[in-house]
Amino acid sequence: MPKQLHVNLFEMNCVSHIIHGLWVHPDNNRHRFNDIEYWIELAKLLEAGTFDGVFIADVIGTYDQFRQGPETAIREGMQIPSNDPLLIIPAMASVTKNLGFGVTFSTSYEPPFAFARRMSTLDHLTKGRVAWNIVTSYLPNAARNFGLDDEIPHDQRYQLADEYLDVLYKLWEGSWDDDAVQVDRKNRIYADPAKVRYINHVSNNYKVAGPHLCEPSRQRTPLLFQATGSSAGIEFAGRHAEAIFTGGSSAEEVQRNINGIREKAKAHGRDPAGIKFFVGASVIVAPTNEEVEEKLKTFHELHSVDAALVHLQSSVDLTLYPRETKLKEIIPENDQSWGLRWADSEETVGGLLDKFRFRQDRFFVAGTPTHVADTIEKWLDEDGIDGINLIQYLSYGTAKDFIELVVPELRRRGRFREKYADGETLRERFFGQGHARLPDDHYAARYRNPENLHAASEPLPLAQSREVKV
Amino acid sequence: MPKQLHVNLFEMNCVSHIIHGLWVHPDNNRHRFNDIEYWIELAKLLEAGTFDGVFIADVIGTYDQFRQGPETAIREGMQIPSNDPLLIIPAMASVTKNLGFGVTFSTSYEPPFAFARRMSTLDHLTKGRVAWNIVTSYLPNAARNFGLDDEIPHDQRYQLADEYLDVLYKLWEGSWDDDAVQVDRKNRIYADPAKVRYINHVSNNYKVAGPHLCEPSRQRTPLLFQATGSSAGIEFAGRHAEAIFTGGSSAEEVQRNINGIREKAKAHGRDPAGIKFFVGASVIVAPTNEEVEEKLKTFHELHSVDAALVHLQSSVDLTLYPRETKLKEIIPENDQSWGLRWADSEETVGGLLDKFRFRQDRFFVAGTPTHVADTIEKWLDEDGIDGINLIQYLSYGTAKDFIELVVPELRRRGRFREKYADGETLRERFFGQGHARLPDDHYAARYRNPENLHAASEPLPLAQSREVKV
Repeated sequence: MPKQLHVNLFEMNCVSHIIHGLWVHPDNNRHRFNDIEYWIELAKLLEAGTFDGVFIADVIGTYDQFRQGPETAIREGMQIPSNDPLLIIPAMASVTKNLGFGVTFSTSYEPPFAFARRMSTLDHLTKGRVAWNIVTSYLPNAARNFGLDDEIPHDQRYQLADEYLDVLYKLWEGSWDDDAVQVDRKNRIYADPAKVRYINHVSNNYKVAGPHLCEPSRQRTPLLFQATGSSAGIEFAGRHAEAIFTGGSSAEEVQRNINGIREKAKAHGRDPAGIKFFVGASVIVAPTNEEVEEKLKTFHELHSVDAALVHLQSSVDLTLYPRETKLKEIIPENDQSWGLRWADSEETVGGLLDKFRFRQDRFFVAGTPTHVADTIEKWLDEDGIDGINLIQYLSYGTAKDFIELVVPELRRRGRFREKYADGETLRERFFGQGHARLPDDHYAARYRNPENLHAASEPLPLAQSREVKV
Repeated sequence: MPKQLHVNLFEMNCVSHIIHGLWVHPDNNRHRFNDIEYWIELAKLLEAGTFDGVFIADVIGTYDQFRQGPETAIREGMQIPSNDPLLIIPAMASVTKNLGFGVTFSTSYEPPFAFARRMSTLDHLTKGRVAWNIVTSYLPNAARNFGLDDEIPHDQRYQLADEYLDVLYKLWEGSWDDDAVQVDRKNRIYADPAKVRYINHVSNNYKVAGPHLCEPSRQRTPLLFQATGSSAGIEFAGRHAEAIFTGGSSAEEVQRNINGIREKAKAHGRDPAGIKFFVGASVIVAPTNEEVEEKLKTFHELHSVDAALVHLQSSVDLTLYPRETKLKEIIPENDQSWGLRWADSEETVGGLLDKFRFRQDRFFVAGTPTHVADTIEKWLDEDGIDGINLIQYLSYGTAKDFIELVVPELRRRGRFREKYADGETLRERFFGQGHARLPDDHYAARYRNPENLHAASEPLPLAQSREVKV
């Protein structure tokens, strides 16, 4: 059987998430993000299309580095305003039975006890359909919203995150036994106190007594997503992640990235097949090439260069330079702009802007359903990915096009599910029936043994890490 | 026109909230609290009954003082397990148009920036139907779940809360102007940057830059609820609260409590009518007195004394003493048990337990619809309250009985709405059309003037406060 594609819709609880300027398109619904109806309609659409899930990005600060202020971000709706991502999940869960929900949350600023409870609550309310995208936050303004003067340095954020997950695992996996809850009316025992325990976690940055306030949910630990871009991130992923966002400019580079992480997982004693790989993908599809061209033209016209530069946290206002200017002439060496650090200094201003306009990387495809399906099959078989986060140009146009045009073609080729396996958890959708919980070879599994709850933690060796280009 | 009653259903995202032991009743649905369907059914029921709202209590720790451990709480399902209260609101909002949602959140342990965003998100998703019950947390275990060794002392918690609200008001009321959001497609302006600003709050305990991540919601600041039981609490309520839980053992005592707070509001420059008063009320109703007696008998039999003592954080295991024992013989002077501090030392063990079994205080009524309505009218007219939080004996039995038997009788007397005013916010339901926002005489209103955003805060004079009996 050929490998089937996993598909999440890439979302954010805001106006302009990743393709910028297109909120002005008359068919776009992005300005409706404050309305519960937007999310309810979206969830129904995606479940009708048997998507794996909706994947919700997040930031907890404003992009205020481009042009030395937040003005451009605010004008463009570029991730501000943006609402809390967890709170739209129960609304979407109320109208679906199978759609999964990936949600981004940062380990850097909020107490683990409260977050553990929120994710357990979501796992209960969705009956095991939630994933967590582990991030550590990179916006300086986010740090300033949470009492700090500036960002926590990159590798220190990962050390904090590693400690944070230790707390969460103890609460999720170790505080309640599987058979703790008895609902025994006759003997008036809701839960057996002998099977519920304090965690009494103490580490450098966290001190958490427990017990966990929630009884075990179907997945206990939500499915763990992560994006990697640094050696610290890869080390972290090797221990923790079950699904990873990766990328690359060629099949070989993608394979190399995937293999590197699988090796790291092996070094952590895990089955390297225990990780699925995702890429952010742009799919612009229409029945004919003429219609595809028409769409591209419209998107091109409406795209906002300003918002893209805000998103890149560009230290340089590239709009002030002629298109043929080489980046190396205007971007200082060791520039710290988040999106420019990885730009090829031989590239021109125009080249870079075009690339971001269309996100024309390896995982961009525009064409007829046949062409799109051919390309996706290559991604699956040559690059070795397992799934995509579908980047939205129009909400809900992008998802509708994919469901109406690409899904049928992928199904004909045996590349996409015909229907959901009713009642499965999100982890089972990724790893098969019977795999609702983290596997036994995962680091967190140690805490299922109460004796290990109070053992000293084993911090990841992250101190020597260096940031690398993905 | 006679004063109409406001009614919230008193809820908690757990098995045993306030009437204990009754989860074993075959008609009780409390064990279903993990299921989204429980909350969806409940919300539909309450909206059909034109309730003001559902009011969700919360704790963020385990009651582990009775019998020196958490065992009894766990066995009884006494507020553990308990899930996050915010996350059930979007599920209930998805199936209602008018029901309000009061939610409890503590100012003591989580960063204000994230909470401000969560409440704004809820206010957007519900279109202005949320209230916040401001609490400061009293469980020692809660403190230990959030990195502390023990509770923050009572008055210090209120000082922290006062500072916390300063941050929230700046984010909710001051960071975005009313006309900041333009959704101007032609000029490609989502929001006008000149009308959005940093708050740059700096105080003893909080440092928050902003801008608020959410655009203004219908109410901006959610309707502010609070319970009072101390002079610090009353000082705090005088400045902040718009709806207050009060109580008393006689009409005179309730009036005195209400007037005391209205005086305090006046001292803070507010219209004393700007506060509504609520009590937790038990209503056991049936068409005939025989059926009422039958219900009382069943509830009596199923009630759990153990769980009630856990809830009281009783330092003494009263179940070990004969019913006729006087409390003063066994409870040490200056006992710090939360629920025993206010017990009359001349009372007997049996008397106290019976009182808690039925919550037989002034706001307990059992009888036919006519008797119940007569009693409620007294509460409204003699005590001067505005509404009740209806305490559940059976979920959904208590709410169903009230809707089927009491609501029609109250309506006949002009004491309860016939229908909702569609599209009103929760604050408008309490204070009339056009009052979606906090009134101009409220402390928070100062932050609508950007010049006041960076002025030094004015902490409440709480240092001299002493705890008093309600």
